[in-house]
Amino acid sequence: MTYCVALRLDSGLVFLSDSRTNAGVDHVATARKMSVYENPGERLMVFMTAGNLSISQSIKQVIGEHVNAAGKTIWTVATMYEAAQIVGEAVRIIYDREAAKLEKFGIDFNVGIIFGGQIKGEGCRLFQVYAAGNFIESLNENTYFQIGEAKYGKPILDRVVKPSSTLDQAAKCALISMDSTMRSNISVGLPLDLLLYGVDTLAVTRFVTIDEKNQYFQMIHENWGKQLTAVFNGLADPVWNANPDTVPNVVLAKGSHNEPLVQAPPAANANTAQPVPLQTLAQGPDSKEQH
Amino acid sequence: MTYCVALRLDSGLVFLSDSRTNAGVDHVATARKMSVYENPGERLMVFMTAGNLSISQSIKQVIGEHVNAAGKTIWTVATMYEAAQIVGEAVRIIYDREAAKLEKFGIDFNVGIIFGGQIKGEGCRLFQVYAAGNFIESLNENTYFQIGEAKYGKPILDRVVKPSSTLDQAAKCALISMDSTMRSNISVGLPLDLLLYGVDTLAVTRFVTIDEKNQYFQMIHENWGKQLTAVFNGLADPVWNANPDTVPNVVLAKGSHNEPLVQAPPAANANTAQPVPLQTLAQGPDSKEQH
Repeated sequence: MTYCVALRLDSGLVFLSDSRTNAGVDHVATARKMSVYENPGERLMVFMTAGNLSISQSIKQVIGEHVNAAGKTIWTVATMYEAAQIVGEAVRIIYDREAAKLEKFGIDFNVGIIFGGQIKGEGCRLFQVYAAGNFIESLNENTYFQIGEAKYGKPILDRVVKPSSTLDQAAKCALISMDSTMRSNISVGLPLDLLLYGVDTLAVTRFVTIDEKNQYFQMIHENWGKQLTAVFNGLADPVWNANPDTVPNVVLAKGSHNEPLVQAPPAANANTAQPVPLQTLAQGPDSKEQH
Repeated sequence: MTYCVALRLDSGLVFLSDSRTNAGVDHVATARKMSVYENPGERLMVFMTAGNLSISQSIKQVIGEHVNAAGKTIWTVATMYEAAQIVGEAVRIIYDREAAKLEKFGIDFNVGIIFGGQIKGEGCRLFQVYAAGNFIESLNENTYFQIGEAKYGKPILDRVVKPSSTLDQAAKCALISMDSTMRSNISVGLPLDLLLYGVDTLAVTRFVTIDEKNQYFQMIHENWGKQLTAVFNGLADPVWNANPDTVPNVVLAKGSHNEPLVQAPPAANANTAQPVPLQTLAQGPDSKEQH
């Protein structure tokens, strides 16, 4: 499995990918999911993939060689939109070549792509390209794209990243998102490739490969969980059977009657001992009013 | 979609379910996913479902009526294991009746079940029952089961719940997990059914249906996100190009050379202006050593 995330900010782009690949749990290897197309001072494009590694690698090969209908390559198109079209065309070329043959072995044409960067003359742009070769662009409302094992790491992105976040803040958030993902899915693993691109630099601003010895990632890994637990412990427990007008954190108001959908036993099976309902014992003097 | 979570603690069980059901985005309705089988003082069992609502409801109907090979019903079996077997048998009865017919309409036999509780004479037990009618039990290592849209809300469960957590702490965690899920997936929605079961009470200890006016859930919803953001802001940003032995939070050590996988343009397309690499401008005096 794979997890990759890219963020589009006012100040540039952040890309983060893991490097675990596996074909079944007994065949785990490392493969880098991030590639950079760089013509310093002129264009900088980053390509990340999730899904079947043989498909991803073939697409990458085609991207480097493909000439579009207008005679342009990834190195000569004038806009990131045209570059994304070349990526989409590469996906479709590999689909035509591979999909039917893979299907005979029950293998889906499974690939997800994030592609972004800047070409001199326009701003930063970020795209998600699907297995069908179509693509969407990150515009105002959506500041990030994820591919692969995306769900575990999504809540933190939704909560803290804004377009005005700095590259380093976004990198921090991406690393927390990755840490949560790695905790919940062992098929996402170190090392990570982290790339920061500052708008108009037209070159890699900052890049690092993060392994288990990386001081910053260790700090994130240890402190995020610890402080999340502290916040959790600091939030009040629910208060039952009190008046919300005078008591904070009331989950069930005194005097209100909430009933679950209860199935009662047939009369023949009903407990004839008729015990005092035990919730009374657990709840003290207010219990009459709850149930 | 649905999200349900149940936790097994030393002190009892916690069950939380949402109540959104939809057949396409233009047909959204409310259906409660939690049912309680209660013979006070003798047995208390809770049943939660995710997946196709017609399948879930039919299974529930069968559970109430089914007599197993030993002539026992859900009300007369002696152990939760036998009760879980009855749930599994009900799933298989509905599978035999429905699956082939639904398949003609391209509808999967899609159902997930959490089933737990206590029968007098043994402790609390918690099971996850699959669409195939087989099931697993929550034992020492795993304190919770989730069904439906499970991934968004999993990281917080992994980080803070322990078997020694109190019922109210576990309820708080389940509500945070639900809040994260509802933020990331609009097809999971209020109201929520929250049920706490204290070991050996053999009755519902605490139950509440939580809607948008619930004071405690409002507090969780507002404060968790706010405090997560505060923790996020309190964590240091990464430091680039410094010595990790003397500076904390270093993501790239001074003097180390990390390179992304770079594709260079063919010579004909290379930028002939040969600009000063722009990352130098962005990085100040240490930049020579980075790249």
